[in-house]
Amino acid sequence: MIVEILATGNELLSGALVDTNSAYISEKIGEIGLMATRQTLVGDDESVLESTFAELANRADIIIVTGGLGPTRDDLSREIAARSAGVELELDQPSLAKIEDFFLARGKKAPQNNRIQAQFPAGAEILENPIGTAPGFALKIKRGTFFFMPGVPAEMRKMLKEQVLPRIKKMLKDPYFYECKTISSFGLGESALEERLDGFSERFPDIDLGFRASFPEVQVKLYQKKRSHKDLVNEQQAAVNWIKERLGEKIVSLDGKSLAATVGKLLIDKKVTLAVAESCTGGLIANLLTNNAGSSEYFILSAVTYADSAKQKILGVKPETLEKYGAVSEETAKEMAAGARRLAGAAYAIATTGIAGPTGGSPEKPVGTICIACAGPDSIISKRYHFAFGKRQLNKKIFTAQALDILRRELRSIS
Amino acid sequence: MIVEILATGNELLSGALVDTNSAYISEKIGEIGLMATRQTLVGDDESVLESTFAELANRADIIIVTGGLGPTRDDLSREIAARSAGVELELDQPSLAKIEDFFLARGKKAPQNNRIQAQFPAGAEILENPIGTAPGFALKIKRGTFFFMPGVPAEMRKMLKEQVLPRIKKMLKDPYFYECKTISSFGLGESALEERLDGFSERFPDIDLGFRASFPEVQVKLYQKKRSHKDLVNEQQAAVNWIKERLGEKIVSLDGKSLAATVGKLLIDKKVTLAVAESCTGGLIANLLTNNAGSSEYFILSAVTYADSAKQKILGVKPETLEKYGAVSEETAKEMAAGARRLAGAAYAIATTGIAGPTGGSPEKPVGTICIACAGPDSIISKRYHFAFGKRQLNKKIFTAQALDILRRELRSIS
Repeated sequence: MIVEILATGNELLSGALVDTNSAYISEKIGEIGLMATRQTLVGDDESVLESTFAELANRADIIIVTGGLGPTRDDLSREIAARSAGVELELDQPSLAKIEDFFLARGKKAPQNNRIQAQFPAGAEILENPIGTAPGFALKIKRGTFFFMPGVPAEMRKMLKEQVLPRIKKMLKDPYFYECKTISSFGLGESALEERLDGFSERFPDIDLGFRASFPEVQVKLYQKKRSHKDLVNEQQAAVNWIKERLGEKIVSLDGKSLAATVGKLLIDKKVTLAVAESCTGGLIANLLTNNAGSSEYFILSAVTYADSAKQKILGVKPETLEKYGAVSEETAKEMAAGARRLAGAAYAIATTGIAGPTGGSPEKPVGTICIACAGPDSIISKRYHFAFGKRQLNKKIFTAQALDILRRELRSIS
Repeated sequence: MIVEILATGNELLSGALVDTNSAYISEKIGEIGLMATRQTLVGDDESVLESTFAELANRADIIIVTGGLGPTRDDLSREIAARSAGVELELDQPSLAKIEDFFLARGKKAPQNNRIQAQFPAGAEILENPIGTAPGFALKIKRGTFFFMPGVPAEMRKMLKEQVLPRIKKMLKDPYFYECKTISSFGLGESALEERLDGFSERFPDIDLGFRASFPEVQVKLYQKKRSHKDLVNEQQAAVNWIKERLGEKIVSLDGKSLAATVGKLLIDKKVTLAVAESCTGGLIANLLTNNAGSSEYFILSAVTYADSAKQKILGVKPETLEKYGAVSEETAKEMAAGARRLAGAAYAIATTGIAGPTGGSPEKPVGTICIACAGPDSIISKRYHFAFGKRQLNKKIFTAQALDILRRELRSIS
């Protein structure tokens, strides 16, 4: 079964917009055991589209297409699909009614342009789009079954999941149950993870192991198929246990949740509040935590104290500490954490102070040095690390992840 | 002149990594007046690579390829390029010496694997890679001139700029000078910008206008070619003046700088310091400002006061104000800004308080409501907006941009 992915649109071809749809589709078909042979991206040019459709129709069994279903003149997918299949475009009354309703609900009359979105090649199977005006469609052209979807990511994702993937599964006449389990990890790179999990494929030959980096976290993915749902669940549990033994505390979550989301959930579950004191992370810890809805339940404050004066005035860091050990020191980090915790009246506090670069490093404290402290009801711990990523924004990311990971481990130990 | 772009790599095809190289190459060749007809992405499969090279060699004049030059077994570009051209791989001694030096400088011996990176198809022109171990190469196969580059973005970008684009320009036998000018704007969407700039192409027929959204900012790009460098500079100046008249204060920078970078530069140029008080933006203002090196010159503090208690304790917001007007009010924003400015001893302060969602809205203050205050040496201003983007992270972004834009306008008015 040969699968290919085609993205269309001048804004993608010119580089004005990066095509994220194709990578998403690849990932999702991977979860049902398929891998595309090729991805193609073309503009809204009639002759290029026509020759591309012809090539794909001859070469692949399943072709997943995004874009070209909008209401404007450069949206050519419907027309060229019909021509390639040697059929006419036909108006679909139910689709037209839905488009008219869509505009009516927003107090408008459907523009003439949008009516062409209710036209489909004769014989096409219409794919509903509950969140936009452009329905998709499936159409057989020679060897290939084409699935045409809108280019708007939210609409495409919903249509892929609800309309396209179930149809593809049926085409595969596939007796298997699929499952993709995602485990988030922090603290090991991809090759180190691979090494730790060496022997997995001998032990679990029915599960494919994959890695997906989202710096500095890495997701471990288990792609699995089984003839019975019960077998699938049992084998997955065994595989997860096997991995837990080998990765231990490097595992952040067993459901793909990021470090920040995991820490947020722990704070809510344990009913404790948090204050943050940030120097070199410059607000990134606060930003990641507050990206998750519900953060106001635990997040009281982050004092982003970039200047030494702010560290003293707000957090009560002692001038002697700054003078004796420097702003980048475990001693300063501890006083920052203690100060933030006291100021906010929070159960826990974390603090960062370090050198993100590109300047400000010294032989003793090179760029990439970070001191982190975590203050809780009973104790304050501090750690010092040196990372060699070199770039300011990468340093901010790894510093932030390291601080969140220390907090995560502390929170897990609360009984 | 037909140009195509090819990306290779299983990690791209599986969706584990999004291909950003192809969009970048598209943008850069656009700046010298070229547009690719098609982009293709294939995995590290020998037969697919071979048939793709063959198609491209027959169909295009210039093919820009990324990936497949690494040292491992699945890096097949060198080998398959040679086979497609009907030549042998040959060892290039100077390249081998450079690879050995690369490892030597890191105190290591070059692994055997890396030595194959010094092999090239006979007749290929070697493209230097000063920052990595894999040199690229140019090779003519049938109709097409192929440029092979590494997939690592930093290495590819440098090689494209220094090695590939100059060669392509020569191939074009092009007597023109090219220039791409980027103007950053905030406050108008793409279609509103297009409307405001209606008439541009009649007035400046030699300049192509493009838009590139980086939410919530939009870059206006002027692509231009002229036979003399003087004509180019003069016409560009006229076009920029024409656009300035129509966009006025919506223009953030005339050199593509982002809002945060522009604000940072203004603070440095005007020698003033800044404090920030953030509620709903949750540290994003601080994070964007501190992403730019040199921010410690002006950035003293951001107090991310999520809880009302923190607004009172740290920033001195009065309980009466919170009670009478609520946390999301211009009054509270003003007291936050004044408090942050006082606490930090800064010249300026900005404050945000609003509702990022998805919950917490009310009929009077729906999700998307933001109050912003800016305190300076002489006055405090405040504004209230409502944005209807719906999503928490988009709201945080637009709130942040709006606050930075208010500060930018204030700073510009300093004499």
